[in-house]
Amino acid sequence: MKNLIQKIGVIGLGAMGMGIAQSLIRAGISTYGFDINNKACEKLKKIGAIEVANSPARSVSELDALLFVVVNGAQVENILFGGENPLVKQLKAGACIVIHSTISAEQAQNFAIRLQEYHINMLDAPISGGALKAEQGKLTVMVSGSSELFEKMKPIFDVTSERLYYIGNKIGQGSTVKMIHQLLAGVHIAVAAESMALAAKAGISLDLMYDIVTHAAGNSWMFENRIPHILSGDYTPKSSVDIFVKDLGIVLEAGKTMKFPLPMAATAHQMFLAASNEGFGQWDDSAVIKTFKGITLPEKKS
Amino acid sequence: MKNLIQKIGVIGLGAMGMGIAQSLIRAGISTYGFDINNKACEKLKKIGAIEVANSPARSVSELDALLFVVVNGAQVENILFGGENPLVKQLKAGACIVIHSTISAEQAQNFAIRLQEYHINMLDAPISGGALKAEQGKLTVMVSGSSELFEKMKPIFDVTSERLYYIGNKIGQGSTVKMIHQLLAGVHIAVAAESMALAAKAGISLDLMYDIVTHAAGNSWMFENRIPHILSGDYTPKSSVDIFVKDLGIVLEAGKTMKFPLPMAATAHQMFLAASNEGFGQWDDSAVIKTFKGITLPEKKS
Repeated sequence: MKNLIQKIGVIGLGAMGMGIAQSLIRAGISTYGFDINNKACEKLKKIGAIEVANSPARSVSELDALLFVVVNGAQVENILFGGENPLVKQLKAGACIVIHSTISAEQAQNFAIRLQEYHINMLDAPISGGALKAEQGKLTVMVSGSSELFEKMKPIFDVTSERLYYIGNKIGQGSTVKMIHQLLAGVHIAVAAESMALAAKAGISLDLMYDIVTHAAGNSWMFENRIPHILSGDYTPKSSVDIFVKDLGIVLEAGKTMKFPLPMAATAHQMFLAASNEGFGQWDDSAVIKTFKGITLPEKKS
Repeated sequence: MKNLIQKIGVIGLGAMGMGIAQSLIRAGISTYGFDINNKACEKLKKIGAIEVANSPARSVSELDALLFVVVNGAQVENILFGGENPLVKQLKAGACIVIHSTISAEQAQNFAIRLQEYHINMLDAPISGGALKAEQGKLTVMVSGSSELFEKMKPIFDVTSERLYYIGNKIGQGSTVKMIHQLLAGVHIAVAAESMALAAKAGISLDLMYDIVTHAAGNSWMFENRIPHILSGDYTPKSSVDIFVKDLGIVLEAGKTMKFPLPMAATAHQMFLAASNEGFGQWDDSAVIKTFKGITLPEKKS
């Protein structure tokens, strides 16, 4: 099949979307960036975007593919189907929508069915790896949907990913895999915080504890990645508490739909809710440790 | 200081104790092995132990150091202080007891105080790494107690460990660090099981899920190590469900003493208790996944 994917739009220029857009530009692909945040738009313009705007309305009919890297399904819904002249009507027939955002399998299926009515194709393609890997074009991408469409979009995914998985031809399977991954990620952050809070309470050096755990069987990717934020007292969000309020919420909703118990996810969700309730929703997700009281944590060196 | 540690006994020749004893023998150290299991004794004798026996009674007065690698504090208590002529009375003055078993900080302090009355020294030195690393002499050892005694025993620890940490001079600090490590390890196993159970319920290939997670931010040492047991349907215990019933129990007791909440540890403990209650106590700890019903898991190929 001839590669017809030439002009690509990225909607949502947060840490992940910006990284994806940068990878595309680096690969010489005509890239369009959209975000309500002007600073993000300016940044991408400088890097080499063909066009940036607060909304894709003006150039959308030219795009072969539109990658959604927004926060949640509600934003996808609003951007695609909201307003008097919804974006979906302006897309060119045969264009491909790729949903990189973490949404539920049900939402993914719902979007795909409605897009079909407008002759718009969709792939369910959640991502993992964090901002740095996004920037390096080294994400993990988990795709589900038509295998033909996957092959068509593969050259694009190859630019943004280090590990590309085709999960299956049923929309929603990619989101399910991502959701299960987020269950692990969220629980690992919550227990990393719990363990270091206990170390603080017991008077164990947190730096020593970090060194031991990261060289022993108690380690996790998240422990190794997030605890340094706590050790430096820097809760500038790489990924925020509210992201896990949302993602673990999606997991628990899916469990409820399947009537399947998820005790670890439920407990971790409560911890992130507690952190958000205490005003840490927009802080780095490692701030979940601040829900543990009566301990002294490192403070940021000014 | 002249190295006076020449004859060493290892009490408890399970997976970890056997590995430690093997490492000592490989290093040319005069090693004595004790276990109520005759097969374990015979195995160590063949490898090159000076003496093996069901109880250390006969040769204990010759030993410079005695390493405890038994299951719990109750076994240490029973072996050291139990019976009409307790072992502690037969040890040579100045001998060093090393507690490698996972016990609580309180128990460690209690043992040290009572041993002092008999002029016996003690180090609190829990270990981590699993059977393979024990055999390779590549354990992580977390020592607390007198720094002088630590220096005296260091050549021995260097033989059995890849990473040796001196936590502090207060007996119990080593155990506290190990306990916090076990909190992470236990929770990681519980959530690994929960995530793969959900994948099975959602109809996602477990092999694919394993491949994705182990290359993404949701990975943990335990996920990577234990899920293959589930994928092969082989629950031959490397480390059993009841070990985590015990270790998370110690963590929660410590939390209670400090009046410190540990929601993740408490939830994981309930899952291991459920597994034990269903008859999986002596199975591999990955069998905690069997508490999730209504899913089909891989069966062992015969």
